[in-house]
Amino acid sequence: MNEGMMMQETLARVRIVLVETSHPGNLGAVARAMKTMGLRDLVLVNPRCAVDAEALARASNAAEVLTGARIVSSLAEALADTVLSLACTSRRRDLPHPAYTPRQAAPRLLAQTVQGPVAIVFGSETYGLSNEQLALCRWLLNIPTNPDYASLNLGAAVQVVAYELRTTLADHALVLPEFAAATHAEIEGVLGALTEVLTERGFYNPERPQRLLPKLRRFFARAGLEKEEVAIWRGILANMRQPARKD
Amino acid sequence: MNEGMMMQETLARVRIVLVETSHPGNLGAVARAMKTMGLRDLVLVNPRCAVDAEALARASNAAEVLTGARIVSSLAEALADTVLSLACTSRRRDLPHPAYTPRQAAPRLLAQTVQGPVAIVFGSETYGLSNEQLALCRWLLNIPTNPDYASLNLGAAVQVVAYELRTTLADHALVLPEFAAATHAEIEGVLGALTEVLTERGFYNPERPQRLLPKLRRFFARAGLEKEEVAIWRGILANMRQPARKD
Repeated sequence: MNEGMMMQETLARVRIVLVETSHPGNLGAVARAMKTMGLRDLVLVNPRCAVDAEALARASNAAEVLTGARIVSSLAEALADTVLSLACTSRRRDLPHPAYTPRQAAPRLLAQTVQGPVAIVFGSETYGLSNEQLALCRWLLNIPTNPDYASLNLGAAVQVVAYELRTTLADHALVLPEFAAATHAEIEGVLGALTEVLTERGFYNPERPQRLLPKLRRFFARAGLEKEEVAIWRGILANMRQPARKD
Repeated sequence: MNEGMMMQETLARVRIVLVETSHPGNLGAVARAMKTMGLRDLVLVNPRCAVDAEALARASNAAEVLTGARIVSSLAEALADTVLSLACTSRRRDLPHPAYTPRQAAPRLLAQTVQGPVAIVFGSETYGLSNEQLALCRWLLNIPTNPDYASLNLGAAVQVVAYELRTTLADHALVLPEFAAATHAEIEGVLGALTEVLTERGFYNPERPQRLLPKLRRFFARAGLEKEEVAIWRGILANMRQPARKD
């Protein structure tokens, strides 16, 4: 496989996820930004506008990225098969996630593509991403901007991130990870099983949830579970559902 | 001067020059892209459209970059006081200029700002830059793109370059050049004087120009004249206009 094909395959594994986008022109600009840098996997979560004539006009000759986009009804669905997810946001200090600039994140994110799809999530133009949506993502991605005017257009933000990925890929040999990363769905499975056990044992009360589940989710997200660890946790949790042995 | 102020002053010396732009929306997108990254010096060469309501709407809260833009009638005028100029183009092989990616060019370009303004020149949406316009610029800037679809929107191209400059500035200490760079106008002055001498001496015939002047311009552009060298060349050329001494 030559270098161009390897770059193509790597970038094809980078998914752009747009949450509740409201302007068709932005959908088109994102599609064009993606294709100019070799990205093509686009997922729309609850779009607030249609893929209409304005969207297709702005997409120019990248319309197939837009018409090929998958539309889903939840961010969890968009991320299910991914092995790494980044939330692009200008927020930072009030969240416990690790936060990286595109330059810092790019080599790590590209290295993960050998294990499966990776996703970069962009919120709606008006509201950005909710705390619940941010909590589903593993890292934050902060594009460095002018502190007096950080208002990057959605298409411009995707353009910058896609450019950074392509340039990083061209400039560096990837450092491959040494472990098998769990998918988003596998990690959610562990969290679901943990929640059930804690509920059964009375440690967790769904009627008075407080902040327990978000905190656990963040812990697992930050840790970045490996497949083997998913199996270990599954074993531990299955064991905890059995009555304690009396020796 | 703190780090934020130094960054602000450095980026203020990076000029964006748009040649014969035809879409008002692109003017607005460029202004917004510039301001998000801290750039504010915009020069329009023979714009083919007005700074109208559409332009201002797309500029959003960066309208002052657009209303403060200088409008000039030639690229030479836009570059006159600059100490370095880069032409953003997807062309490469057919031109003898040194060509850099934004990542390669950014540290060199930023280092030159201590000597005076630097410019990045973007051609019209339809025609790009002419050979004559390219010949006025010192280096080419090639944004790496998907070879199957290199059609970067004007606003997107400015966004990528401005992002690269801001990120490079945040990540690296600048390596300052050790010489005093000549301005574009000083270099043009040398070329003008050289042309006069060569014409007087019959070496150059303006009726049959062939490729002599473009070749000389490229030579001087590639070399990147220092102020001291401008003085030396001025001396040499003044000397050549006098009759040869008979000893």
